[in-house]
Amino acid sequence: MLNFTHDIPTKLHFGKGAIEHLAPALDAFGKNVLLAYGGGSVKRSGLYDTILDILRDGNFKVTELDGIEPNPRIESVERGVELCGQNGIDVILAVGGGSTIDCGKAVATGIFWEGDLWDMVTSRHGQLRALPIVDVLTIAATGSEFDGGGVISNMALSQKVGNSYTYPAVSICDPTYTFTVPAYQTAAGSADIMSHVFEGYFSRTMDSDLSDGIAEAILKSVMRNCPTALANPEDYEARANLMADSSVACSGIPEYGKQSTGWPCHAMEHQLSAFYDITHGVGLAILTPRWMRHILAKDATTLPRFVRFARNVMGLDGDDELSLAHAAIDALEDYLTSTGIPMALTELGIGREHFAEMTARANRGGRLDNAFVPLTDEDIEQILEACL
Amino acid sequence: MLNFTHDIPTKLHFGKGAIEHLAPALDAFGKNVLLAYGGGSVKRSGLYDTILDILRDGNFKVTELDGIEPNPRIESVERGVELCGQNGIDVILAVGGGSTIDCGKAVATGIFWEGDLWDMVTSRHGQLRALPIVDVLTIAATGSEFDGGGVISNMALSQKVGNSYTYPAVSICDPTYTFTVPAYQTAAGSADIMSHVFEGYFSRTMDSDLSDGIAEAILKSVMRNCPTALANPEDYEARANLMADSSVACSGIPEYGKQSTGWPCHAMEHQLSAFYDITHGVGLAILTPRWMRHILAKDATTLPRFVRFARNVMGLDGDDELSLAHAAIDALEDYLTSTGIPMALTELGIGREHFAEMTARANRGGRLDNAFVPLTDEDIEQILEACL
Repeated sequence: MLNFTHDIPTKLHFGKGAIEHLAPALDAFGKNVLLAYGGGSVKRSGLYDTILDILRDGNFKVTELDGIEPNPRIESVERGVELCGQNGIDVILAVGGGSTIDCGKAVATGIFWEGDLWDMVTSRHGQLRALPIVDVLTIAATGSEFDGGGVISNMALSQKVGNSYTYPAVSICDPTYTFTVPAYQTAAGSADIMSHVFEGYFSRTMDSDLSDGIAEAILKSVMRNCPTALANPEDYEARANLMADSSVACSGIPEYGKQSTGWPCHAMEHQLSAFYDITHGVGLAILTPRWMRHILAKDATTLPRFVRFARNVMGLDGDDELSLAHAAIDALEDYLTSTGIPMALTELGIGREHFAEMTARANRGGRLDNAFVPLTDEDIEQILEACL
Repeated sequence: MLNFTHDIPTKLHFGKGAIEHLAPALDAFGKNVLLAYGGGSVKRSGLYDTILDILRDGNFKVTELDGIEPNPRIESVERGVELCGQNGIDVILAVGGGSTIDCGKAVATGIFWEGDLWDMVTSRHGQLRALPIVDVLTIAATGSEFDGGGVISNMALSQKVGNSYTYPAVSICDPTYTFTVPAYQTAAGSADIMSHVFEGYFSRTMDSDLSDGIAEAILKSVMRNCPTALANPEDYEARANLMADSSVACSGIPEYGKQSTGWPCHAMEHQLSAFYDITHGVGLAILTPRWMRHILAKDATTLPRFVRFARNVMGLDGDDELSLAHAAIDALEDYLTSTGIPMALTELGIGREHFAEMTARANRGGRLDNAFVPLTDEDIEQILEACL
């Protein structure tokens, strides 16, 4: 087990009716609120009206930052920072999924950032000084409600960059708000949750029991509850389990004590989203089984971890360990396919045109030199080819 | 899944050399430190000297509260509060195990408590206003380093009372500090960790995947690592896993989304400790299998949970569910016995003299009316009888 620091200051109110905590949470920081949200879904669901009522009843002054994109863009961050400055904002209220919360985080730190905001997104730093953020979560996926990071895109540069910003002060996680999430987004979000776990689970550290146990619990829970939520979108227990899974999956907790892996699938997927603006979870779902087969073939010392995955997560058994590992990867791919998302890049209209450029960017600065299995540019291109 | 709030503000520095975080952690709160510790073990291990060196180098002013008992007593709390008042203490530094940290918490809140301190221990309240606490953990057991509660005893009244106080601001968890923990305390601490998990795991809520997965991971980890630590007290990986398990076990996290159970074994054990000053973990180890057999016999609807325990934790299988449940309880008792702690009250010189009084106190205020299986006074006496 390696050293780690647990430092997650976020207070999380989980469950039906958790919105009752909203007004007191905001009140702790002030009356001047930047309400950040995406498109029509929070309006269609009625949540926007509910929140405006609460803000009105609580005598909050509201400034709106709307239209935040599914892969949130630097222009939205710039607009938010400008609104905060113009309106003396005390607290940011992000209502939506990971994109809205990520954008809210970058706005919260951007107000204190000296200089160009794209530099904040691309430069190396830890947690930054920030306005407080409160969020109301509407999809189980990225875990941004319980971590300190965010991902911001610059479509002009075809770049999508993850970085450290600030933790939400309070996250309000009511699973009923995810009843209206469409099947495609439910499945993609679930694949995103699983990928967050895989990125830490496939590590050289084999003795971090609690982290690995939490990782396995999340993976099994997602595979049990996602199909239920797809079949019955208003199944509270399924939605609740997925939401709890999402918060912990990306919190860093499943990686405590484990060797860092560079998050190879995320490094590759961010290029797909940056070039083609595809849904993050779909890109991850396509990449993951191909990446698994590639590293298993490249490095036989990965076998014990795949065997553990086969036994503890996929519930498989058998004496031939290599067959077991392949059966587990196949079963994972079958499961992902069964959730109805595209499982090949060609289904998304993506060809190999930008593979070389995407490869170079995914491996920028030798990021994947220390992955579970270090990936060369050639490895990455082969994995992308396998995804076509 | 039921609603819950996650609100654990503690920053946890985990691993070899984590003591490097001590001076900066204290400095954030001030220079006037109350150093709280127990008896000779921190002096024998050299940790006391290490810490005094750090405090001297950092120009901290140190007031000592020493001699805190293994079941910390109200008199120590009173003495600590007096020292805080006399010396204008800024921050409490608790060095030791759960007893020292619990006492430190009660001192931290006691300085702001108006009136008699035993009233603070026995009255109903949530988290209280408190001085900041930093702790350096020396045994994997109670989880006080990552929760907001404490247990204080009054031997004159034969009372041992758990209550809510305050969370540590910073916990420094270096597994090497547990290398010198004797076998008896290692085994008792491990039984304590397991009991914290059992108290939440055996609940009516069957659909809280992540909580149950975390619970199962901790139980398996303790049973794997405790024997290793007993055989080789300086096995870092075993000590590290036990320490991580201890912090999460009592944090409330394994109970998120689950129906409260009243913690029946703790309710009963606190009476054993209060009357006989025995080691908490030993009392819990003795009670747990007897409690399990009693509730399984009393209420057949508990069977699915015992079957899950048998399969997912004890690694047993079989078609006859009742046999499987009993085999799991037997296997647990065998495991606890194998760790070398006494597994009968008679081994501790305890007879049935005070059973009636202990029963009445354990069930005070109908505390166990809402347990996983509600326990009447008759049930409790039968369980205690089975422990002889």
